[in-house]
Amino acid sequence: MLSSFASRLLDALGPDVVRAAPEDLAVYAFDAYSEDKLPSAAIVPHDAREVAIAVRIARECGEPIVPRGAGTGLCGGAVPSRGGLVISFARMNRIVELDVRNRRARVQPGLINLDLSAAIAGAGIFYAPDPSSQKISTIGGNVGTNAGGPHCLSYGTTTNHVLGIEYVDGNGALHHTSIDDSGYDLTGLLVGSEGTLGIVTEVDVRLMKLPEAVRVCVAAFTDVESASEAVSAIIGAGIVPTALEIMDALITRAVEAHYHAGYPENAGAVLLVEIAGTHDDAAAGEAALAAIAREHGALSWRAARDQRERDALWAARKGAAGAIGRIAPNYYIQDACVPRTRLPEVMHAIDAIARDHKLPVGNVFHAGDGNLHPLLIFDRRERRQVEAVVAAGTEILRTCIAMGGTISGEHGIGYEKRETLSLVFSPDDLAAMGRVRDVFDPMRAFNPDKIFPSGAMCGEVKTPAALGTATA
Amino acid sequence: MLSSFASRLLDALGPDVVRAAPEDLAVYAFDAYSEDKLPSAAIVPHDAREVAIAVRIARECGEPIVPRGAGTGLCGGAVPSRGGLVISFARMNRIVELDVRNRRARVQPGLINLDLSAAIAGAGIFYAPDPSSQKISTIGGNVGTNAGGPHCLSYGTTTNHVLGIEYVDGNGALHHTSIDDSGYDLTGLLVGSEGTLGIVTEVDVRLMKLPEAVRVCVAAFTDVESASEAVSAIIGAGIVPTALEIMDALITRAVEAHYHAGYPENAGAVLLVEIAGTHDDAAAGEAALAAIAREHGALSWRAARDQRERDALWAARKGAAGAIGRIAPNYYIQDACVPRTRLPEVMHAIDAIARDHKLPVGNVFHAGDGNLHPLLIFDRRERRQVEAVVAAGTEILRTCIAMGGTISGEHGIGYEKRETLSLVFSPDDLAAMGRVRDVFDPMRAFNPDKIFPSGAMCGEVKTPAALGTATA
Repeated sequence: MLSSFASRLLDALGPDVVRAAPEDLAVYAFDAYSEDKLPSAAIVPHDAREVAIAVRIARECGEPIVPRGAGTGLCGGAVPSRGGLVISFARMNRIVELDVRNRRARVQPGLINLDLSAAIAGAGIFYAPDPSSQKISTIGGNVGTNAGGPHCLSYGTTTNHVLGIEYVDGNGALHHTSIDDSGYDLTGLLVGSEGTLGIVTEVDVRLMKLPEAVRVCVAAFTDVESASEAVSAIIGAGIVPTALEIMDALITRAVEAHYHAGYPENAGAVLLVEIAGTHDDAAAGEAALAAIAREHGALSWRAARDQRERDALWAARKGAAGAIGRIAPNYYIQDACVPRTRLPEVMHAIDAIARDHKLPVGNVFHAGDGNLHPLLIFDRRERRQVEAVVAAGTEILRTCIAMGGTISGEHGIGYEKRETLSLVFSPDDLAAMGRVRDVFDPMRAFNPDKIFPSGAMCGEVKTPAALGTATA
Repeated sequence: MLSSFASRLLDALGPDVVRAAPEDLAVYAFDAYSEDKLPSAAIVPHDAREVAIAVRIARECGEPIVPRGAGTGLCGGAVPSRGGLVISFARMNRIVELDVRNRRARVQPGLINLDLSAAIAGAGIFYAPDPSSQKISTIGGNVGTNAGGPHCLSYGTTTNHVLGIEYVDGNGALHHTSIDDSGYDLTGLLVGSEGTLGIVTEVDVRLMKLPEAVRVCVAAFTDVESASEAVSAIIGAGIVPTALEIMDALITRAVEAHYHAGYPENAGAVLLVEIAGTHDDAAAGEAALAAIAREHGALSWRAARDQRERDALWAARKGAAGAIGRIAPNYYIQDACVPRTRLPEVMHAIDAIARDHKLPVGNVFHAGDGNLHPLLIFDRRERRQVEAVVAAGTEILRTCIAMGGTISGEHGIGYEKRETLSLVFSPDDLAAMGRVRDVFDPMRAFNPDKIFPSGAMCGEVKTPAALGTATA
């Protein structure tokens, strides 16, 4: 028996668009955070018109609405925690317009991030934001979380590359924003709002010219602290490489065992550096960076010799989380930031917290941005370990906040971290954000239970029911 | 006799902070757009606490509130059009914190733009957004209008350099935003909101490393169209100089007569180009740009030989509007944008519009950004000329919109252009922006009559009562 909600969707949009059978809905119940909940219905629309129709029907039926890209989010942002309607953008995955001369493209939200750069590489241009998930994650999902990535160090995050947005508001009306227009910057407001303000149906993105030369280098260090000191010195010297990534010994060994990319397996930590520009720039940049690295204790410095080696180093780095599967049944990846000058100190603190809780920890992070990703390794079948992970994760967040940092670098808040928002915003500020939400979606039907604290717990991190979701 | 509003302000803040005598208030009645109106009171606060107290008193008395930087705005954004309270930030002009290593500063809104860069030049860093008014305009005012400037071509506008904001909301409560925090991007929302969402009391800004080498070059062309073609070709070639400015013959002659900076006086148009980077970058960049300019008809190409010559060229360019005083009793400066590829076409159209209305027009503009500043020259004592300027200004805006452009590049909307917002936004979109405003300032007491159309006229440009305000 179909619900009247599903029936109305079927009447309006047909069986090609609407999914209502439990076996079809199971795939929309979860994302990479494993809280899961079956929706009442899902749609796979062809265009914005179909999205708007579905939003209006959901509104009339009082059903919540959750937009879904590729479901790679680590914080449960695409989980239909209250059931309702999931809108999958799997079909809306085209480049609608490409303007090479003005270097901009209009794309649909379901377009895979890397597919965009691959399609335009022939024209000598690329889309800069490159989350490690870029092989599978979508531009729409990237817009929702304001996704970062290794190269955001010099190019900025997603918000710096979005020129305009088409979206459906809570009443089912279609709107278009542009950063070129006057009035309030609604484009910037929509980026990072995790589907709580509007359902994005098209994105205008900025494209960049591919650099003439790229060098990718690897330096080995005795430990993460000294690698962090080198990063701090590089930034302090006013040099901005296109990427500055650190992996600790545990991660490096797992990655190298899996990918054989050429990382020094016995190093206490490795620093992955990319420099781009003209051939002269890249050569001069490498010389300057190698000198600073050596001054700060680098044991070795090696540049990839060709594109194949460069690609291998990056593929291994971006696949680091997956490689952890070799050494642990489960891991919990945290996402937090500190000012870059405090990196050595925070690495020391994370190490101490993990030791206190008797948990192995791996560190792989965007060092140049001060964006940490400690991976706490555990076995979810052991209750003590699950409790220790929750406690350690909270301590790490509080430590980062105390150092002037914040609770998320790029993964978003989603379902997982909503209670921690109270750690960085006052009730007044949260209330103001809630009223901003009401402007766009007065029924608060878009992605409920995401971003905003439930109100039940203030300043406390809720124990996520499904912690340990991220099985490697 | 003091109003009860002024009396309450005096009781709370004292005579050192509060201005209430008409002769003291006269200076707060206008900005560089000459609609003028005496406020009921003005304050010159020392800190955010005094601002918050004044906002609460104004709220209780039902008085509107207008924040004021240096009063250099060209669109009437600081005019107290309904009287009420003006908050002058003349006293809140300090650098509160400077963090050279992380390249950020916390400044008060009354700090003069150029004073910031001058104060930190010794540390090898600068604040990038550089409106032509930077010698006198304030960071707070720049934040209000999301000010651009010649160097925003490569560095981005004010919004790309604001890391956080402290502001007082419509209830008199103090808040702080940061782009590093999660949740909605309220920092970006506040930038460009022209004082309608909150009264900014502190700004965290990003600082940049001064480039190793800077070259400033001047190319002469036979006309603006061919100079525009060269700009379009430079952008199309994927080269981004730090500035790409065009002045037509009328402006070049006025500027050169006034400043003797070394511009070719007999050129039909000049292109001012700046390239920055390493010494090698700058040399290679100049060679590439000179070659493109010559291919597109440049009659000459000359690089300034030293810092003195570079400074002279920039001082003259940034003083262009002032130099018009040599040739005209009054001018009206328009601010609009088109996609850069359509520059030659729009320059042709502006010329035709000015000819139709029998008005001389000068063009000085940020060509690399597609940001036009046609100056229509007239005598405000001639009624026919005033009417012609209004009609021509509207036609120019409509032409830019039809070419895919927009109604303001950097001056803001303010009082002057509020009716034109209906040309680019639907009533629904304007209503959504109005509701966003209500979140921050439910009484709509902050800067009334600015940005939003009055509703009386839809799609029509209102005849500004005080057109011709901008006397040179």
